[in-house]
Amino acid sequence: MAEAETSLVRFGIVGCANIARKVSRAILLSPNSTIVAVGSRSQEKATAFAKDNGFPPWARTYGSYDAVLDDPAVDAVYIPLPTSLHLRWAVLAARKKKHVLLEKPVALNVGELDKILAACESSGVQYMDATMWMHHPRTAEMKAFINDSQRFGRLKAVHSIFSYNSGPDFLNNDIRVKPDLDALGALGDTGWYCIRAILWAAGYQLPKTVTALRDAEFNEAGVILSCGASLLFHDGILATFYCSFLSNLTMEISALGTHGFLRVHDFTIPFQEKVGPFYVHANTKFAELSIGIEPGPTEHLVATDLPQEAMMVKEFSSLVEKIKVHGFGTDKIWPTISRKTQVVVDAVKASIEKGFEPVEVAY
Amino acid sequence: MAEAETSLVRFGIVGCANIARKVSRAILLSPNSTIVAVGSRSQEKATAFAKDNGFPPWARTYGSYDAVLDDPAVDAVYIPLPTSLHLRWAVLAARKKKHVLLEKPVALNVGELDKILAACESSGVQYMDATMWMHHPRTAEMKAFINDSQRFGRLKAVHSIFSYNSGPDFLNNDIRVKPDLDALGALGDTGWYCIRAILWAAGYQLPKTVTALRDAEFNEAGVILSCGASLLFHDGILATFYCSFLSNLTMEISALGTHGFLRVHDFTIPFQEKVGPFYVHANTKFAELSIGIEPGPTEHLVATDLPQEAMMVKEFSSLVEKIKVHGFGTDKIWPTISRKTQVVVDAVKASIEKGFEPVEVAY
Repeated sequence: MAEAETSLVRFGIVGCANIARKVSRAILLSPNSTIVAVGSRSQEKATAFAKDNGFPPWARTYGSYDAVLDDPAVDAVYIPLPTSLHLRWAVLAARKKKHVLLEKPVALNVGELDKILAACESSGVQYMDATMWMHHPRTAEMKAFINDSQRFGRLKAVHSIFSYNSGPDFLNNDIRVKPDLDALGALGDTGWYCIRAILWAAGYQLPKTVTALRDAEFNEAGVILSCGASLLFHDGILATFYCSFLSNLTMEISALGTHGFLRVHDFTIPFQEKVGPFYVHANTKFAELSIGIEPGPTEHLVATDLPQEAMMVKEFSSLVEKIKVHGFGTDKIWPTISRKTQVVVDAVKASIEKGFEPVEVAY
Repeated sequence: MAEAETSLVRFGIVGCANIARKVSRAILLSPNSTIVAVGSRSQEKATAFAKDNGFPPWARTYGSYDAVLDDPAVDAVYIPLPTSLHLRWAVLAARKKKHVLLEKPVALNVGELDKILAACESSGVQYMDATMWMHHPRTAEMKAFINDSQRFGRLKAVHSIFSYNSGPDFLNNDIRVKPDLDALGALGDTGWYCIRAILWAAGYQLPKTVTALRDAEFNEAGVILSCGASLLFHDGILATFYCSFLSNLTMEISALGTHGFLRVHDFTIPFQEKVGPFYVHANTKFAELSIGIEPGPTEHLVATDLPQEAMMVKEFSSLVEKIKVHGFGTDKIWPTISRKTQVVVDAVKASIEKGFEPVEVAY
């Protein structure tokens, strides 16, 4: 199939970050999308990236980001640039009528994100953040368990961890530890997922109070390398998380209900690509004499034909298709979830800056 | 074997609480201990308890606690009374030269515990709290992993949950929700274990700051039904826990190190009596393209011939034996650990009472 004939959603990649390799593969795997262009600050880098990542032969390679946005064949852009560049390039993309799949952390603060969302809304283009795990079929199955009033009951507590031991090269050189590039550090990179997990479990209500946990760790430039927070919700749900660049790769959610408990140990990136497990404890009681329990926990395996990042691209592309082909309006759910996540990121940062004092979350 | 001939440590049970059934079984299972007496406020209750729990035929049954303490054949007492009675009966037991195995929570505050410990010290009798999971062979194996500088690295974060859904009858009637009996509520009952787990993982250093998490839940009498806290240690270890009477039975420790991660899902009461599993992630890295990880986590199964509560009795009895038969002094480790746990319990309670403000922990 030649490019002109395609009914697929045609992506342009804006920047050749490492994560763009994974998402490019996902765009090519997803049945309703393809890649038609990639731009980098260097033409050589763009050309090499297209070649190394199996782009279709007709895909254009550009020595600038602008050229991707000016390419009329591009329906949608994926933006994996450093966070400090998101405001500029996402707004510009929206103004050029490109749908926006934006890498997280999506913005340095909710003020920036609101400008991005307003630009997308005003141009009628779809916005979605690239939080892959939301799109694994496991995520919906886990949510069904949390929503099960018999087996899980009411949510009472959530805990999430996302950390990895980034190593000396990362800690000296990566954009994620540079205040002018990804100023949110570990909070934006891994904390983003923990916060999303908590909001997801709590049905996307915002917490009323966010309190960072004493103490956070920073590099010399003041970028967060590890931190945690507790989130209190209106109905008494108490959530905590811990995110870090300085600890072993760990990706946990535990959600505790009145009658059940759910745990998942690879929520952001499944240990295996084709199947995601999670573990359920329901109506657990001590056995006679408090020796053992009954019933025991059960393992649930959720298979997926497409990796979660391709499921994400498929969902995004189907929303784009609805707008482009069928004249639908933009979906509002993904932007709303993204904004709530950013609101909590901001609150954690504010709490840290206030010396770990509680921060009331504005609606 | 008749009582007079025994070289076993001879226990008296002071009170017929439900938990005393499990510990009585443990005393009879342990190879170095036996039961020679039980006292209750009611003679009938003591007699029925001895019969129902397979006591040896020579075991005396008494209609008072005093009578157990006055029985010259009793070497050691197990005290499962409500916490508010511990000070009186543990001190009295020590004065009567009985070694003291004390159910947790051991005291209403560290001031009380110090009086108990001073009485034991002054009488030369052994003190130990009845925290069973400390004695499962799994606990030592888990600690060996946490101490492994190659596979775990330095401890960075700990999270623990212990909750159970106690139900309406418990919430109306149980001693653990009565301010005059077990005034520490869920903090003393299940939080005790979480705090112990954190101290255990952190090598029994005390935290420098304890901050209760907003908010705790209370009953009408002001007894804690659920709460959490964060603990900050001098070397930056950040620990959190959540304890509750209002959520599904859940017993978690997760310990995160620079190079490894440990999780256990049944730390207080193993799902199975004869084998305790735990899960280890060591030097975990993202696989190519951040698709999956390598290496995967591994399950470790630790078998035990004796249930952990019998291992506890065996350890206690061997310390008693060393004093009684060999003239050793009392062991100081268990009292020290118990006291540190109480210090942190007190700090969490103080933080809640101060409106969730940080509390500096006194040494």
